[in-house]
Amino acid sequence: MPDSDPDPRALMVAGAADMIRRRGLSATSVRELAKHTGAPLGSTYHYFPGGKQQLAAEAVGFAGDAVTRQLRRRMAAGPVAGLHAFIAAWRETLLTTDFRVGCPVLAVAIEEPEEDSAALRAAAAAFSQWCELLATALCDDGAAPAEAGRLATLIVAAIEGAVVMCRAQRSVQPLDNVGPVLEALVADAIS
Amino acid sequence: MPDSDPDPRALMVAGAADMIRRRGLSATSVRELAKHTGAPLGSTYHYFPGGKQQLAAEAVGFAGDAVTRQLRRRMAAGPVAGLHAFIAAWRETLLTTDFRVGCPVLAVAIEEPEEDSAALRAAAAAFSQWCELLATALCDDGAAPAEAGRLATLIVAAIEGAVVMCRAQRSVQPLDNVGPVLEALVADAIS
Repeated sequence: MPDSDPDPRALMVAGAADMIRRRGLSATSVRELAKHTGAPLGSTYHYFPGGKQQLAAEAVGFAGDAVTRQLRRRMAAGPVAGLHAFIAAWRETLLTTDFRVGCPVLAVAIEEPEEDSAALRAAAAAFSQWCELLATALCDDGAAPAEAGRLATLIVAAIEGAVVMCRAQRSVQPLDNVGPVLEALVADAIS
Repeated sequence: MPDSDPDPRALMVAGAADMIRRRGLSATSVRELAKHTGAPLGSTYHYFPGGKQQLAAEAVGFAGDAVTRQLRRRMAAGPVAGLHAFIAAWRETLLTTDFRVGCPVLAVAIEEPEEDSAALRAAAAAFSQWCELLATALCDDGAAPAEAGRLATLIVAAIEGAVVMCRAQRSVQPLDNVGPVLEALVADAIS
């Protein structure tokens, strides 16, 4: 028996990120999260008094940070190898989940925000964080700063777009198409 | 007074495409469409007996065909100029709608399909149609077929991803970053 239970609040945030990356933001609610994670409804409202926006913003922040850590770890192998491994990981996720799972950060950004949206701000922050991390890795390996910035945005945009195309087409071909072009661009930029 | 009213069914399909590109698929329903377009609820069910899936599939097909026609028209000016104009049009759409409008084809592909989804099949068909059109335009201007295919996928994926990043960041910077890189790749491929 483990000497400490997992933090129930952290489990709910992770559960919300999982729901959003599968179903999108509209279909995600505090009530649905309680069902999805098996938590009592009262406890979800206790932990997230700000309701769905708070939950979604924390879920997006959680997912964004997880990708940032993954990118940082992979970039340590060098930008070309790191990018290749990152795309291979997405490929594996799509195949093992029967194309049911996408990116929760993208998912919250395709719905018209009702007003000031904490979830949308969290998505913007995650995209910026990834782009900055990639641009820094490219610069560290010798790319020119302006080119590194443009290329970092292209990498994030193209992988996000390709993952959605893969889900629609139920095939990893879109990722297999964009991967080699992105890797060649990175190799050129740092050579 | 015009001698013929616009086709009410076609107006509903266009209205559904507009709802989906603003709000996503989950928030779109036959009932909401009736509200959005001011049509009587009964008439929407009359025109779309298959309900939301039929409506969404037709809306995605309608939007996909509109983009195909636009891409074909723009590519007639040559792939580099055509791509530049296509991206400029997206830039304008984002700015004039206060970043509230995205791509309905992408929007339907980020939600776990409940079963066999006609809307998802329509999205897959639209992505394929755009990629084939772009690959053909690149080949017609001298690109090697394999390179043209990969580059066409990258163009579609990167623009789709960049539009979502623009909506999150409420800025056209992501499109402004990816545009020049894509245009340079196209210029290289056809030179």
